[in-house]
Amino acid sequence: MKWPARVTITEVGPRDGLQNESRIIGLADKVRLIDALSLTGLTRIEAASFVSPKAIPQMANAADVMAAIERVPGVTYVGLVPNERGAENAVAALVDEIAVVVSASESHNRANVNRSVAETLTSIRNIAAMCTSETVPWTGYISTAFGCPYEGDVPPEAVLRLARKMKEAGAQVIALGDTIGVGNPRQVFDLVSRFAAETGEPPRLHFHDTRGMALANVVSAMQAGATQFDGSIGGLGGCPYAPGASGNVASEDMVAMLHRMGVATGIDEPALLDAAWLAEQIIGRPLEGRVKRTVERRGLSS
Amino acid sequence: MKWPARVTITEVGPRDGLQNESRIIGLADKVRLIDALSLTGLTRIEAASFVSPKAIPQMANAADVMAAIERVPGVTYVGLVPNERGAENAVAALVDEIAVVVSASESHNRANVNRSVAETLTSIRNIAAMCTSETVPWTGYISTAFGCPYEGDVPPEAVLRLARKMKEAGAQVIALGDTIGVGNPRQVFDLVSRFAAETGEPPRLHFHDTRGMALANVVSAMQAGATQFDGSIGGLGGCPYAPGASGNVASEDMVAMLHRMGVATGIDEPALLDAAWLAEQIIGRPLEGRVKRTVERRGLSS
Repeated sequence: MKWPARVTITEVGPRDGLQNESRIIGLADKVRLIDALSLTGLTRIEAASFVSPKAIPQMANAADVMAAIERVPGVTYVGLVPNERGAENAVAALVDEIAVVVSASESHNRANVNRSVAETLTSIRNIAAMCTSETVPWTGYISTAFGCPYEGDVPPEAVLRLARKMKEAGAQVIALGDTIGVGNPRQVFDLVSRFAAETGEPPRLHFHDTRGMALANVVSAMQAGATQFDGSIGGLGGCPYAPGASGNVASEDMVAMLHRMGVATGIDEPALLDAAWLAEQIIGRPLEGRVKRTVERRGLSS
Repeated sequence: MKWPARVTITEVGPRDGLQNESRIIGLADKVRLIDALSLTGLTRIEAASFVSPKAIPQMANAADVMAAIERVPGVTYVGLVPNERGAENAVAALVDEIAVVVSASESHNRANVNRSVAETLTSIRNIAAMCTSETVPWTGYISTAFGCPYEGDVPPEAVLRLARKMKEAGAQVIALGDTIGVGNPRQVFDLVSRFAAETGEPPRLHFHDTRGMALANVVSAMQAGATQFDGSIGGLGGCPYAPGASGNVASEDMVAMLHRMGVATGIDEPALLDAAWLAEQIIGRPLEGRVKRTVERRGLSS
C-alpha cells in the first residue's frame, strides 16, 4: 500500500456540521468554534453558507460570522454559495474561497436546490465568472457522487461529466461528496483512480460516516492518490440519539489515524481535541467522534 | 487494490462483547442471542468463556449456555479458555473449538491472567495436548498485538515469536487482537504482510473500534491477504454513554461494507440486523453499530 507524506484537511464542521443541527446555534458560539479551529494548524475552514435564511435558518448570519471571526494568517476561510446572490454576498463578506455544489443525480439536485443539474451548472458558470473578476478561487463539489438517496447507484460517468464541466468553468479543485455515506472502499478506490486518470488529478473527498466506512474510504482514496479530505470537528452533523446519524467523518479521528500512520497534516492533535470538546459543549450533547472519548477516559493524548 | 472473493467472520459478541457489560445478562438472553446469530449464515460463533465465575461473573454460566443453545449444523461454537481447568470444562461442554489467549506484552498478560507470558505458553501447550487427545481444534489469540495500554508500542517480533510458538504447539489459526483499538491501517498492512510472509499464511484479525479505525484496518488487512475477521454483533463491548467506548467492530457494519464491495460472507444482512436489534434490546441501550440506525431511519436494507 502507498501512503502520502502529507494530506490537507478542510474543516467543514461550522458549515456542513452545524447546518444539520435543528437547534439554532448563535453567532457568538459559531465564532468561538471557528476561532478555536483557526488555532489548531488547520489551513482550510468552511466557515459559512450564504444561503437564504428562509431556506436554512441555521446559516442565517453568514456575513456576520465572516466579519466577527479572528482571521488567522495562512488559514483559508471558505464560504458555500447556492447561487449568484449568495456568491455576491460571499464576495462582499470577503471569503477567501467560494464553494459551489451540484449533485451527480438529478433528483437529489432538485431536492437540494429546486433546480435541474443543467440550471445549476449555468448558475455555477455565472458564479465562476464573478470569481474570476474578483480573483476569488472556487471549489466545485459534486454531491451524491457515490450514491443517491432517491436514485441509488450513481454512474461514475455522471460524476466525471460534471467534474469536466466545472474544471472547464475554472474550478481550482473538484470535491466528491458521499452525501449519504454509502460509498464503500472498493468503489472509492475505483472512482478516485478513474477520476485521477481522466481529469489529470485526484479529487478532494468529502465522506460522511453514516455507515462507519469513512476512515476506510480515506485509506482507499489515498491508495488512488488522493491527498485532500474534508472533516467535521467532533463528527458534527449527526445526532447519536436519533436514528440515522449521518455526520461527516470526525476531523480529530481522521487526523489521529493519519498521524499514527506517519502521514502529516500540520494539525496539532491536542488543540483539535480541545475544539472537538468545544463543539460538543456548544451542541450540548455527545458527538460521534471516537478519539476524544478515549482521551477523556485514559488521560492519553495519543 | 486487491479484494478477496470471500471472507469468514467469527462472531464474538456473546463472549468478548458481553464480557465487557457491567450488568449481568441472564442465561436465557445469552441463549436467545446465540440462537438468533446461528440463523444468520454465520459459521463461527464464540459462545462462552470458561473462566472462573469469581473472576468474570458475566461469563459464569458457560456450560449452561453450551447446553441450552440450539446447535445449527455448519456452525462452529467456540469456547474461550484461560487455563487447563477451563479447557477441561469447555471440552466437557462439547465446544466445537477452543480459543486460548496470550498477550504480546508482558504487563498486559500479567494484568489479564496474573501470569507471565512464559507461564501462559506452558499452559497453552498443556491445553493443546488436551485438544489433540480430544481432537478439538484450537485458535491462538495474541492480544495487544498492535499496542499495549501499559507498554505502548509492541514490537512485531514479539507477535511473530508467539505465533510461531503456538503454531508449533498445534494451533489451527493465529488471531491477532487489537485489544485497545490503537492499530492503524498502515501498521496493520505491514504486520499482516510480514506475518503472512514469515509464517506462511495471514492471521485472523480481531479489531476493536475504539478510535473508529476498525473498518479501515479490515481494508488494509485484506490488502495483505487476510480473509478472516472477528466482529461483535451491534458493536457489543463498548458503552456509548461512557467515556472510552471500546467495543469490537460491529459485525453488521463489517458485513454491510464487505457486501457493498462485492466480498461474500455467506451472511444474510437482514437476519444479522435483526440479531443486532435483539442485542440492543437485551443490553438495554443503543449500541455503537452504525448501519442499523440508517435502516431504522430510512427503511432501506442496503
